[in-house]
Amino acid sequence: MPQAVAGPEIERLIQLLGRMPGLGPRSARRAALQLIKKRETLLAPLADAMRVAAERIVVCSSCGNVDTRDPCTICADHSRDPTTLVVVEDVSDLWALERSGAVKARYHVLGGVLSALDGVRPEHLTIARLVERASEPGVKEIILALNATVDGQTTAHYVTESLKPLGLTITRLAHGVPVGGELDYLDEGTLTAAIRSRTVF
Amino acid sequence: MPQAVAGPEIERLIQLLGRMPGLGPRSARRAALQLIKKRETLLAPLADAMRVAAERIVVCSSCGNVDTRDPCTICADHSRDPTTLVVVEDVSDLWALERSGAVKARYHVLGGVLSALDGVRPEHLTIARLVERASEPGVKEIILALNATVDGQTTAHYVTESLKPLGLTITRLAHGVPVGGELDYLDEGTLTAAIRSRTVF
Repeated sequence: MPQAVAGPEIERLIQLLGRMPGLGPRSARRAALQLIKKRETLLAPLADAMRVAAERIVVCSSCGNVDTRDPCTICADHSRDPTTLVVVEDVSDLWALERSGAVKARYHVLGGVLSALDGVRPEHLTIARLVERASEPGVKEIILALNATVDGQTTAHYVTESLKPLGLTITRLAHGVPVGGELDYLDEGTLTAAIRSRTVF
Repeated sequence: MPQAVAGPEIERLIQLLGRMPGLGPRSARRAALQLIKKRETLLAPLADAMRVAAERIVVCSSCGNVDTRDPCTICADHSRDPTTLVVVEDVSDLWALERSGAVKARYHVLGGVLSALDGVRPEHLTIARLVERASEPGVKEIILALNATVDGQTTAHYVTESLKPLGLTITRLAHGVPVGGELDYLDEGTLTAAIRSRTVF
């Protein structure tokens, strides 16, 4: 282990920074030094923003989103389409969809995907709560916005089975060529899906 | 610009994280989400460590190191060789040398290198303070541990000229093959230096 060079406070900062995703021990030191150099403009505001986040962020008891209020901003937004629920694996997927602006509905965060390998079973996800929310009056469509991975698709099938008794429309995202994507770099599965779902030009 | 999705507190956290070195807008969002998920074990301690650092870290008025005390831990360490000063460009270089444990002396952080291109002139660096410290009784050797770049070497020459009247021994780091390095990947300049400074085996 490298020895401490600059007092326990800086060492602790470096150690904690090194546990952030995307930062290793070396980049944590560089980050710590940059933060110290920008003490007034970055370090102090960031410390404050983190403290506020740590104190005030809660998980929405309705959809599983993270926010400083419960129900979250999205669940509390009455301008959103009340007939549709968008099912996502994780909050990061919810954020990605919100950035796209493609849908103005409410979400349901499953908190992961079923995985025999990782021992994730239906009771580890918020599927029961989803069935409860989907049963509320007015809900007509469930959009499954799960990742196009094996585990994501297994989960999609399981969720579909769970929701079947409610008689709702259940849809999933289209497969196809990403916008800006080059055919040469796409896998055969995507190309096959894109050909099958071709649209009139 | 992507729209805000999760309240101003999280947006602010993401925005500030994105200004950290090594994190872009996308990785800042991922980092924010990971931090929120590890609220108790990482986010709160990191906020605290940053606050402590922001409040307590000072630049050592003697050597330019950053620490929570002035003079810094290294300058205040009486077990260090008082005859030698190691001149470095930046605190990160000081940390690197301390980790190596190669020298138990005091340092002098120049705060950069001379650069005509970037308009860094001698008065922007702590060269005057270095001459002052080098004049103190007992100092015998100045080790120039500057980067082996053009600007680093220009600075080394300038510093050497500034220190010449004091009649001290001025040394610089050896050039050669890095330990574990493969000759095939080294540039000609390094190989030439390694041949010239070859040692008896």
